[in-house]
Amino acid sequence: MGVVVNLEGGKRSAASIDGLIDLTKDDMGRVNELILSKAGSDVELIPELARHLISSGGKRLRPMVTLAAAQMFGYAGEGHVKLATSVEFMHTATLLHDDVVDESDMRRGRKTARMIWGNQASVLVGDFLLGQAFRMMVDVGSLDALDILSAAASVIAEGEVMQLGVAKNLETTEDEYLAVIKAKTAALFSAAAEVGPVIAEASRNDRAALRSFGANLGLAFQLVDDALDYGGNSSDLGKNIGDDFREGKVTLPVILSYRRGSEEERGFWKCAIEENECDDAALEKAIGLMNKHGAIGDTIGRARHFGEIARDALAPLKATPQKAALFDVIDFCISRVT
Amino acid sequence: MGVVVNLEGGKRSAASIDGLIDLTKDDMGRVNELILSKAGSDVELIPELARHLISSGGKRLRPMVTLAAAQMFGYAGEGHVKLATSVEFMHTATLLHDDVVDESDMRRGRKTARMIWGNQASVLVGDFLLGQAFRMMVDVGSLDALDILSAAASVIAEGEVMQLGVAKNLETTEDEYLAVIKAKTAALFSAAAEVGPVIAEASRNDRAALRSFGANLGLAFQLVDDALDYGGNSSDLGKNIGDDFREGKVTLPVILSYRRGSEEERGFWKCAIEENECDDAALEKAIGLMNKHGAIGDTIGRARHFGEIARDALAPLKATPQKAALFDVIDFCISRVT
Repeated sequence: MGVVVNLEGGKRSAASIDGLIDLTKDDMGRVNELILSKAGSDVELIPELARHLISSGGKRLRPMVTLAAAQMFGYAGEGHVKLATSVEFMHTATLLHDDVVDESDMRRGRKTARMIWGNQASVLVGDFLLGQAFRMMVDVGSLDALDILSAAASVIAEGEVMQLGVAKNLETTEDEYLAVIKAKTAALFSAAAEVGPVIAEASRNDRAALRSFGANLGLAFQLVDDALDYGGNSSDLGKNIGDDFREGKVTLPVILSYRRGSEEERGFWKCAIEENECDDAALEKAIGLMNKHGAIGDTIGRARHFGEIARDALAPLKATPQKAALFDVIDFCISRVT
Repeated sequence: MGVVVNLEGGKRSAASIDGLIDLTKDDMGRVNELILSKAGSDVELIPELARHLISSGGKRLRPMVTLAAAQMFGYAGEGHVKLATSVEFMHTATLLHDDVVDESDMRRGRKTARMIWGNQASVLVGDFLLGQAFRMMVDVGSLDALDILSAAASVIAEGEVMQLGVAKNLETTEDEYLAVIKAKTAALFSAAAEVGPVIAEASRNDRAALRSFGANLGLAFQLVDDALDYGGNSSDLGKNIGDDFREGKVTLPVILSYRRGSEEERGFWKCAIEENECDDAALEKAIGLMNKHGAIGDTIGRARHFGEIARDALAPLKATPQKAALFDVIDFCISRVT
């Protein structure tokens, strides 16, 4: 099993997470086993619903970041596997609750759990997975890691509540929107990255570096996701175009288009987002307005900005295959959309 | 501020939790402050919804049990206040999610949070409170207490999922029902009681005693609650009669009546519970059938049985005002219904 060692810091033409996947392959095998065993329960519905989520083909980016961040500082124990699994469970619990809150029917091209098993089961299995996540963290026994991850759990929920307030509010500023995604997306990436050096007992500076890397990677990731929902610059999408639009979500491409638009255009956005007039023709018009005002391009530009901060956060660390792989993750996130 | 010291073990005519309230008065003042501060957030909706819950007039039995259980073993620090607050937050988060899952309109005679702020906010603020609960536990720094409370969080959610499977299923056996309430109600009482001796570094036997006390108190508490929903033996109710019936919940009074009923009576139960024919006339008939088969009396009998086990769990411990107060809590729970 060859490990791909990238030249540190060198911009590569084809950004990919292959380096990260190779470096974490063995550990991810153990994460996947742990996911299956900790999602087990005598209560049939739980493993059934959990299997649906597990087979849904997510990239598992967050747990891989935790594993690489621990390896990077020479961690030799087993705790990182448990922490990585906890991170993935926290993420999965959030998705389950999110789909209920957003009344989403589809995720990654498949029916959401709530469409198959109902909102009730989605809420409760989410709670179960969160409980299991905490049990695994406790099992690792690092109070610092517990502190970071439990704080993230609160902040994520706070971000989701904040998003309710922003929902359908076209007057949301870019700053307000950034505060939402900082909490709901970046907090978990940040915690996932920071617990690596924490469990490896790395220095305070190393912790801060990984924390900052994770937070900024998370912001870039979310902004790219927002751009992709309107087609990004590409036609090859893993996700259905227009999901956010149909749910009336006020994401950055909408915020920029609304603020830069004419009075008449703002009227269109109000009908679409506030009055739910969001059929395919409206979506086409929305994308047209976004392109007119450079809203998608500028959303990607903002993502690049945070990607650069993430890169500089890691810059002073010594060259390791893990560092190179994490650099690639930044490029990969941005390249999804370009 | 006088402290009421009850004679240990003596059955008192008027069971009350005054002893527990007096013993924990100072600590509960700090718990209430902590509840307000930890339910605080810059996201307006969170403290607003939290205030609704806080002012809803629950007895706060669980945190008082934690405080008394810590005092009982001479605990002198501040950790018990944080753990007690965590326990109350876990309980509140469960109520928020429960009301969403059960589609409940009212709780303790007031509109539920989901009726005022919607299901979305209820799910997410529940998640926030759970996150805050974990942060406080982590802050205390006892891995044993964290282990107990995080395991309880998983078990509670498992119990709630189990209850979904039992819902509207009249063939549920008493054993199956007990398994549900053991998980969804008794687990938190048990954890609330056990973390007291844990934080006070009491012996393994003392931990086991409080754990068993809490679990059996929780079972008794839930069974009495189930009986009270059908009027118990009293006419003075803090809760609307028939809430469980209208929601089609299969609780022990229903299980016993169904199993002991004639073919025709079982037909009635099927219409009421499975087909939702649960108007006031049906409720009256249901209570009539319960009385005919002694189902309410026997539910209370089962509660007494667990109350006795709770009492014997504490019996070997040395006489303290806290022990006497916890004995009173058992009597109080049972006396709510007699």
